[in-house]
Amino acid sequence: MLKAAVLGATGNVGQIFVQLLENHPWFEVTTVAASERSKGRTYGEASRWRQTTPVPEAVAQMEVVDISPKAVKNVDIVFSALPSNVAGKVEEDFAAAGYVVVSNASAHRMDPDVPMLNPEINSSHVCLIEQQRKNRKWDGAIVTNPNCSTTVLTLPLKPIYDKFGIKSMIVSTMQAISGAGYPGVASLDIVDNVIPYIGGEEPKMESETQKILGTATEPAPFKVSSSCHRVPTIDGHLEAVFVETEQEADPKAVAKAMENFVGEPQTLKLPSAPEKPVVVTWEPDRPQTRLDRMEGNGMSTVVGRLRKDPVLGGVKFIALGHNTIRGAAGCGVLNGEYLKVKNYL
Amino acid sequence: MLKAAVLGATGNVGQIFVQLLENHPWFEVTTVAASERSKGRTYGEASRWRQTTPVPEAVAQMEVVDISPKAVKNVDIVFSALPSNVAGKVEEDFAAAGYVVVSNASAHRMDPDVPMLNPEINSSHVCLIEQQRKNRKWDGAIVTNPNCSTTVLTLPLKPIYDKFGIKSMIVSTMQAISGAGYPGVASLDIVDNVIPYIGGEEPKMESETQKILGTATEPAPFKVSSSCHRVPTIDGHLEAVFVETEQEADPKAVAKAMENFVGEPQTLKLPSAPEKPVVVTWEPDRPQTRLDRMEGNGMSTVVGRLRKDPVLGGVKFIALGHNTIRGAAGCGVLNGEYLKVKNYL
Amino acid sequence: MLKAAVLGATGNVGQIFVQLLENHPWFEVTTVAASERSKGRTYGEASRWRQTTPVPEAVAQMEVVDISPKAVKNVDIVFSALPSNVAGKVEEDFAAAGYVVVSNASAHRMDPDVPMLNPEINSSHVCLIEQQRKNRKWDGAIVTNPNCSTTVLTLPLKPIYDKFGIKSMIVSTMQAISGAGYPGVASLDIVDNVIPYIGGEEPKMESETQKILGTATEPAPFKVSSSCHRVPTIDGHLEAVFVETEQEADPKAVAKAMENFVGEPQTLKLPSAPEKPVVVTWEPDRPQTRLDRMEGNGMSTVVGRLRKDPVLGGVKFIALGHNTIRGAAGCGVLNGEYLKVKNYL
Amino acid sequence: MLKAAVLGATGNVGQIFVQLLENHPWFEVTTVAASERSKGRTYGEASRWRQTTPVPEAVAQMEVVDISPKAVKNVDIVFSALPSNVAGKVEEDFAAAGYVVVSNASAHRMDPDVPMLNPEINSSHVCLIEQQRKNRKWDGAIVTNPNCSTTVLTLPLKPIYDKFGIKSMIVSTMQAISGAGYPGVASLDIVDNVIPYIGGEEPKMESETQKILGTATEPAPFKVSSSCHRVPTIDGHLEAVFVETEQEADPKAVAKAMENFVGEPQTLKLPSAPEKPVVVTWEPDRPQTRLDRMEGNGMSTVVGRLRKDPVLGGVKFIALGHNTIRGAAGCGVLNGEYLKVKNYL
Repeated sequence: MLKAAVLGATGNVGQIFVQLLENHPWFEVTTVAASERSKGRTYGEASRWRQTTPVPEAVAQMEVVDISPKAVKNVDIVFSALPSNVAGKVEEDFAAAGYVVVSNASAHRMDPDVPMLNPEINSSHVCLIEQQRKNRKWDGAIVTNPNCSTTVLTLPLKPIYDKFGIKSMIVSTMQAISGAGYPGVASLDIVDNVIPYIGGEEPKMESETQKILGTATEPAPFKVSSSCHRVPTIDGHLEAVFVETEQEADPKAVAKAMENFVGEPQTLKLPSAPEKPVVVTWEPDRPQTRLDRMEGNGMSTVVGRLRKDPVLGGVKFIALGHNTIRGAAGCGVLNGEYLKVKNYL
Repeated sequence: MLKAAVLGATGNVGQIFVQLLENHPWFEVTTVAASERSKGRTYGEASRWRQTTPVPEAVAQMEVVDISPKAVKNVDIVFSALPSNVAGKVEEDFAAAGYVVVSNASAHRMDPDVPMLNPEINSSHVCLIEQQRKNRKWDGAIVTNPNCSTTVLTLPLKPIYDKFGIKSMIVSTMQAISGAGYPGVASLDIVDNVIPYIGGEEPKMESETQKILGTATEPAPFKVSSSCHRVPTIDGHLEAVFVETEQEADPKAVAKAMENFVGEPQTLKLPSAPEKPVVVTWEPDRPQTRLDRMEGNGMSTVVGRLRKDPVLGGVKFIALGHNTIRGAAGCGVLNGEYLKVKNYL
Repeated sequence: MLKAAVLGATGNVGQIFVQLLENHPWFEVTTVAASERSKGRTYGEASRWRQTTPVPEAVAQMEVVDISPKAVKNVDIVFSALPSNVAGKVEEDFAAAGYVVVSNASAHRMDPDVPMLNPEINSSHVCLIEQQRKNRKWDGAIVTNPNCSTTVLTLPLKPIYDKFGIKSMIVSTMQAISGAGYPGVASLDIVDNVIPYIGGEEPKMESETQKILGTATEPAPFKVSSSCHRVPTIDGHLEAVFVETEQEADPKAVAKAMENFVGEPQTLKLPSAPEKPVVVTWEPDRPQTRLDRMEGNGMSTVVGRLRKDPVLGGVKFIALGHNTIRGAAGCGVLNGEYLKVKNYL
Repeated sequence: MLKAAVLGATGNVGQIFVQLLENHPWFEVTTVAASERSKGRTYGEASRWRQTTPVPEAVAQMEVVDISPKAVKNVDIVFSALPSNVAGKVEEDFAAAGYVVVSNASAHRMDPDVPMLNPEINSSHVCLIEQQRKNRKWDGAIVTNPNCSTTVLTLPLKPIYDKFGIKSMIVSTMQAISGAGYPGVASLDIVDNVIPYIGGEEPKMESETQKILGTATEPAPFKVSSSCHRVPTIDGHLEAVFVETEQEADPKAVAKAMENFVGEPQTLKLPSAPEKPVVVTWEPDRPQTRLDRMEGNGMSTVVGRLRKDPVLGGVKFIALGHNTIRGAAGCGVLNGEYLKVKNYL
């Protein structure tokens, strides 16, 4: 078993990391780190655990340590669920201290020498680690996953991009409250309400989509326009996607490409890889957030309502994925698994 | 005072008609008609009133009558909140019997000789009544309002269309549960959920938008693509709109065009006309469904987040309007007022 | 494997029966029966499956049959999720045809010769079957579970009753929307709302509590007063309970009695029996509906906030249980398991 | 016009004070004070106004000042919406500086020389001001309203207490999220959830009810037991109440006593006094939070489902009131009006 630390372990994404790593075949959480306020308390006390499964017993007993390479010792991999304003410096410290950091934070996602992996799509970007180590003169590494709405979106985009080409894309999101962490969105702001704004999300969706679908060094050249909205759902980001393709794209042919799509995680049979990264439904009113977000244990994107788009000339469809699993901790764990089999740990 | 009948008066939109006509300066509800099941009971009993203001005392005491010209006698105007499957034939019967029917139903909206009025935009289409009377050999008339999501959307589109031209448009909606009537959406289908489908809504948004923004006889030639979603809000349809303009359209210039936009209802000072059909906000996270849906007594569309669209090259923005007021009964009452001052009653 | 039929299989509780019986070690669903409207279609089509786990493949392919002993042949046990207005006659027909019917319907619950089992509490009432068969001259039998709110409530009451005696009890419920079935509660009635009334629920809670805690022939003599409310939660009935005890009851002693409480299902190690029928928490703000309803796979009642009651002189506490699992289909399956090991099938 | 300051004006209750005082016939907000962070900004900027009516134009332009008698000058009355941890000292400072402070904070409610007024019930307690001034050697005064759930509850209790006597009382509350202020309850804690705990609320309900219904110097001697719960509603506290009366209390006689109940605010025709402090409904499923919370402009308690209670022997019923209007700022304004006509300003 490899020893894993979770940074920012008491927050919402940190808790999902702890939850997903319980009974993991390769990784074992041996260290939980969080901010000053939690230090010295047990994880059970400090986390105010808020998941629907019980806190893993062994982790509950652990003492929470400082978020520093000094305090976190003797682990083989570091999963970071830190808030982005903290993550920037801290993750660099860990990488400099020789650790491989698998991060959910946005701080380093757009760094040219940091791989931002949605591994079914761009596992090959892992090669950036060599460049990163050279540039930064460290033995560790930082690898990130994309932001939640981008992760969910890019899975079904990839087979379209490969088979039909993409010239441009418009997306409107309906994002769950858990995407804002805890305490996050005030209930007075979201009950019987939609908030048509999520700070920083639209630029992220646009640039991250291009980076993931591009090569390790060149972003994909197509244009992306997004409008991001918070709706009163707990988990699951639902997105209305309109795609302009290079070549004529029939909805059925697109569906077939999506259904056949697999990546390295599937070939390598990584423990957290869903059998199908993209699941296509033809039910007229699916995917629905509450009913479909756990597809593939929360690791698949469910696509529905595939139809011609009369404006862009390609296809339009609905995509739904679980924002804190596929869109955050689950993608992080999958990235950790990929790094392991590729001998980066 | 003109005497008004409300058809389908016990349903949700019917109740809003009754609510809006309380204390109306020109119209007085003197007859309420509903389906068999309500017949012979007082409106107070039959309606199971579910609004947040009390049922108007006078109407509560009225006996509910049949939905037929025979039972509804001696009124000057008929407001129809009938379900569309019933409205088709019934509204024709009323028009044939000489009544002017102002309808919220979709049954006749796309008939070439029926004006579908969002009166700030296309009050001139009222001229179709002459054609309608000739074609159908009746003395009455049928005038409709558009469907709720289209009504909200077309208000801000009109000044763009007039000033910059529109080549195409993409819209994703986040629609409230009241749009489905009562009982409508099952709570198990919408709590902690988004349903990415509303039966018939997308074709309606596409064809109705073209009809309203066109001339009385020719639809506007631009393409529309929509994706419609139900979200857990009570009232208020929020829409993410992406517009390709004919001419370069700067967000500030677009905002100015919207803010200056008025139509005949404003010029004529109709009682239900909002001072501003379109209200523009620059707050970063507005409009919000719960906070802004009552703008202009629920008769305005609030536009926010006006910005360049990198894909279509025009602008993108958020539009919000009250679906059962501006998008249904309120627009119907405004149409009735317009017909009155134009001497159609 | 014993063959099982589910009556009313397409409804919400029917779907939970099908879900819980997937991979059951003793029972296999071989027949699904539902109303006329579903007849002849596959279960997959007819059920409009609305659970968060996929419909079991084998059941999805089955053709739905009539709800009659004629159409349902060759099964060893019949689980009934019929609406109560239908259940009365139909369940009698099945019992007369020799079937053992395990019912969730209220129709026969209060019949003096029908056991209403919450089996940790009153499995001994199963003896009423002999009387029932004699009275009604049939070879089959009807056994019911209590209504959902009563099932959840009576688990923690039993150890209090046994150890301290109960003189009277007041309970206010906060019940989930799934308790009303599907489509059930209209969304317009429950978003941002509480409905302080559930038809028939209060009399049921009062009489059923007395029957379950009594002997097979005599209801428990203590008085019960309830106030039942529907709140905007999906699953899980939360109840505020105030108990007047016969003897001085210290909260800690009550907690201990609850924690030690087990019944025949635990002793017999029935497959659906939770390890602990009652789980006590001392967290100040627990149990919470969303976080705790799946305790014991949805088969336990979670009790929290145990404290002295200054008015009744006993204790007050919060009880939470899963209404469609423990409170309906899960209790039915547990009853089926009990009947099997007791050789009633 | 009397000049009014609002302390804590940017918070949720502060905003309701500002909203209710717009167009008030006697009071005009001339000063808004808030914490350090808001100082020097206009109220429009600092408040992040979150009400469904627009921010009053004149107040929006005001500069926010410090919460101190030094910064707040030249006003005739001070309305305090301060958080309780701040209010204690600050309100004393204002009273010492000669101001009459009408407070919504809990800090001084239980002080023996501070009147806690729900003015239909205990306006006579205003006499405590003399004692207060003597004790504390100041010219100003502190007057408070009760906590929100208590205010709603005590209105219907008063006519029962006067006519039938009360021996004891049990109440379970279902309280809205706005009761916790802003940001208050995290959305992840309340969507699809009930939280069976509100810090400090139960002791407050118990002691404040006794103080209000008692004489100026002696609390009412009956026992109160409460269980307080947060549910996913925006505004409106709904309460299930069980009352043990001294004398036989028939539900109809109780209803009559409630309907006839008025207090000094009605006799004096205070501007914010509702015509009926208690409105009784016999609809089987009312009052409902969303539909009935604005009764009497949010100043009445609506009582429904009046019935015999089999355990306590008196009556049980549902009470609903608006927590931020009647239960907070509205009661404060009413208290201010009462103090004015009684010449305390």
